[in-house]
Amino acid sequence: MDKPSLPKGTRDFGPAQMSRRLYLLDTIRSVFQRYGFQPLETPAMENLSTLTGKYGEEGDQLLFRILNSGDFLKSADPQLLAAGQSRTVAPQISEKGLRYDLTVPFARFVVMNQHEIAFPFRRYQIQPVWRADRPQKGRYREFYQCDADVVGTDSLLCEAEIVLMIREVFGKLGIRDYSIKLNHRDVLAGLAAIAGAEGKETAFCVALDKLDKTGTESVKADLQSLGLPVAELNRVFGLLEHAGDPKEKLSMLEKSFTSNGKRGLEDLRELLQLLEGTPEGLAHVDFDLTLARGLSYYTGCIFEVKVKGASVGSVSGGGRYDNLTQSFGAREKLSGVGISFGIDRLYDVLEEFSLFPAGTGASATVLLCHFDAETRAYAFRTAGILRNAGIAAEVYPDLAKIKKQFEFANRKGIGHVVVVGEQEMKTGELTLKNLATGMQETLAADAIIQRLHGK
Amino acid sequence: MDKPSLPKGTRDFGPAQMSRRLYLLDTIRSVFQRYGFQPLETPAMENLSTLTGKYGEEGDQLLFRILNSGDFLKSADPQLLAAGQSRTVAPQISEKGLRYDLTVPFARFVVMNQHEIAFPFRRYQIQPVWRADRPQKGRYREFYQCDADVVGTDSLLCEAEIVLMIREVFGKLGIRDYSIKLNHRDVLAGLAAIAGAEGKETAFCVALDKLDKTGTESVKADLQSLGLPVAELNRVFGLLEHAGDPKEKLSMLEKSFTSNGKRGLEDLRELLQLLEGTPEGLAHVDFDLTLARGLSYYTGCIFEVKVKGASVGSVSGGGRYDNLTQSFGAREKLSGVGISFGIDRLYDVLEEFSLFPAGTGASATVLLCHFDAETRAYAFRTAGILRNAGIAAEVYPDLAKIKKQFEFANRKGIGHVVVVGEQEMKTGELTLKNLATGMQETLAADAIIQRLHGK
Repeated sequence: MDKPSLPKGTRDFGPAQMSRRLYLLDTIRSVFQRYGFQPLETPAMENLSTLTGKYGEEGDQLLFRILNSGDFLKSADPQLLAAGQSRTVAPQISEKGLRYDLTVPFARFVVMNQHEIAFPFRRYQIQPVWRADRPQKGRYREFYQCDADVVGTDSLLCEAEIVLMIREVFGKLGIRDYSIKLNHRDVLAGLAAIAGAEGKETAFCVALDKLDKTGTESVKADLQSLGLPVAELNRVFGLLEHAGDPKEKLSMLEKSFTSNGKRGLEDLRELLQLLEGTPEGLAHVDFDLTLARGLSYYTGCIFEVKVKGASVGSVSGGGRYDNLTQSFGAREKLSGVGISFGIDRLYDVLEEFSLFPAGTGASATVLLCHFDAETRAYAFRTAGILRNAGIAAEVYPDLAKIKKQFEFANRKGIGHVVVVGEQEMKTGELTLKNLATGMQETLAADAIIQRLHGK
Repeated sequence: MDKPSLPKGTRDFGPAQMSRRLYLLDTIRSVFQRYGFQPLETPAMENLSTLTGKYGEEGDQLLFRILNSGDFLKSADPQLLAAGQSRTVAPQISEKGLRYDLTVPFARFVVMNQHEIAFPFRRYQIQPVWRADRPQKGRYREFYQCDADVVGTDSLLCEAEIVLMIREVFGKLGIRDYSIKLNHRDVLAGLAAIAGAEGKETAFCVALDKLDKTGTESVKADLQSLGLPVAELNRVFGLLEHAGDPKEKLSMLEKSFTSNGKRGLEDLRELLQLLEGTPEGLAHVDFDLTLARGLSYYTGCIFEVKVKGASVGSVSGGGRYDNLTQSFGAREKLSGVGISFGIDRLYDVLEEFSLFPAGTGASATVLLCHFDAETRAYAFRTAGILRNAGIAAEVYPDLAKIKKQFEFANRKGIGHVVVVGEQEMKTGELTLKNLATGMQETLAADAIIQRLHGK
């Protein structure tokens, strides 16, 4: 029999990794909930009519398709089959696909339930998505997305809350040195206007977006090759190079923009004002004129979060969009704003900076060890007392040498053992051993509970 | 454009339902963790070589297959395609499938990681599975399974812990009236031996399993049609009809069994002894001689949980198996025991008996309402204070009539509103209104926090 294996680009999350992932996801989830976001889950399979045409030609090719059940060839055109026309045959033999992101299923949900939903609607969604991408380091075919969106309002309060949520998540995770880059689609349009790039806004922004990777000279060359005049470009670069805090940059642009970009600056000013009223003020907020993020989708403020000194790129991003449900033909326009946390990258950051709390990943806090069936039964009852007090306790289930039981605790990262022997059964005082320090105490169950609760 | 729809047999879980599901899953998860079970997640997609042949012919037909990416027809046999041989073509154009249960992926994980795992290995896994079943009431094509297993030990301590976990989960969920039916594969073999059903054990158990549905006469008729002698059948029914607590039933069987079934009775006696040492003793435990549960898989104790008066069938089940990894050709035998909670059915039970805690499903505890941009900004800052104190708070994001804001809170099931007006901003005392009772108080933020924490 062949050794079993995993499909390429997919992963198992074993106990240690899963405990850490749950810590990360629970942290984010608790913040979302405190801001009134409600959970949503949609099925892994969607009709292909829901998915296709939403991610561009390239995205459509990356959808995982589910083969129809039963006699699927019945509905396929024999001539196309004979001609090996895989791409044309695919829709004839598959009606469903795996979701590619969480946004399209969310939009589908909103359209299907628009009459029951109380808008503005705040939802979060933490689920895997699937893409038939070529697997490579850090890119998987199955990975989690973790999104929060408010739809049905264009209030900038929502943008402000997103900044607060990012700061709260990062604070709870212990990430101290990071920057929330902020920009606005309309500000980019204003810069494009100054550069004389009307009609070429997308190419202009794509070039700009590379500034921190390739540097000024390379970006300038790219922009000149678009046919943009040097004098205007220099004016734009003058603005880009202007250092300063977000409000200084705002004031500078307010003097430079005539009509294009004014609305974006007003939005940003209102957003900054809201943030200034909070205890953390503008901490971590960085107005970054070169931030672009997939322009086709966003229409207002855009965000991206980078952790300083980390080897991964941005760990979170989002922005405002004009019309979530447009692609499903909904009549009413639904403006919304969303944030997405990159779970795999955040995981890597926490690992890189050793920020996972100690003990995350252990199976239990304490292992109860014993010498024979009688002491094991006593250990079993004692475990019940510890668990009642909220302590994760495991009893070594087999009769085995005490050394083997200790080794088991060590291998699983269980920090403490309680040893139950004949003597201990008589007195009711048990031996608690800290495996890291080797320290050993003889205590009653109550006192052991206190110790394990860190008192 | 067509109205979007869901694939048949699949569901969205909207906010109210999701909050309740999360409450249910978190409750179970916290119990698993307190017993030292560690989380595992495996990918939705598995190689078909992992999945096929594990669930019988019928199961193989219910697997959802993923169409290979790219030019999938290239690898298909043109003659089979032309002949419309869907079943033979399927493996040529699909290499992967969606997981059908959590047990096979778990076994695959154990085989692939056997040298890293510290046995006995306790894992839990809460993930969706997919089956191309005909959808009907209560049967879905995508549904969650929620399993906990210990493998690498045959200690009956694990069975005892499973009973404790079931009682703890049900206690936390507020389900009071339920029964944990207990039986043993070997006890069934003992009964079959008395009935003269050697070689027909499976048919014997299948018939027995129907006793509480179809009644004694019908089951007797079924068994007679297997060619079992009437006198022996009457002896078996005499045993089945014996009322009494688990220990009385054990004693009775110990007198009746000669060799077959003795081992099963010993196991059950040890298990009951372990349970008698716990505070709840044998509460909820019912030794049910007719319980059979898919015999092909289980080899030792078997469990099933029924909630009395509920309109659904069993809500949980499990048992001991001899060799988890056999189907992957692993040499070492791995005995294990597992329990599975039926999430959809437990959800229905909690709904049926109104056991979901009040407030589960609301987006936030309190909605902050306002009259204009200035009071809204003040509400935004106040929300920060409430959230810091652990209260889920939402600010109505748009400028709107206060009536509309109250209606929004009502529609979303938010129990309280705080109103911020000009007067409130001056004094710092805010109006807190309980929307259910209509009671209204004017309080400082600190006092509001106390109230919302239920003090």
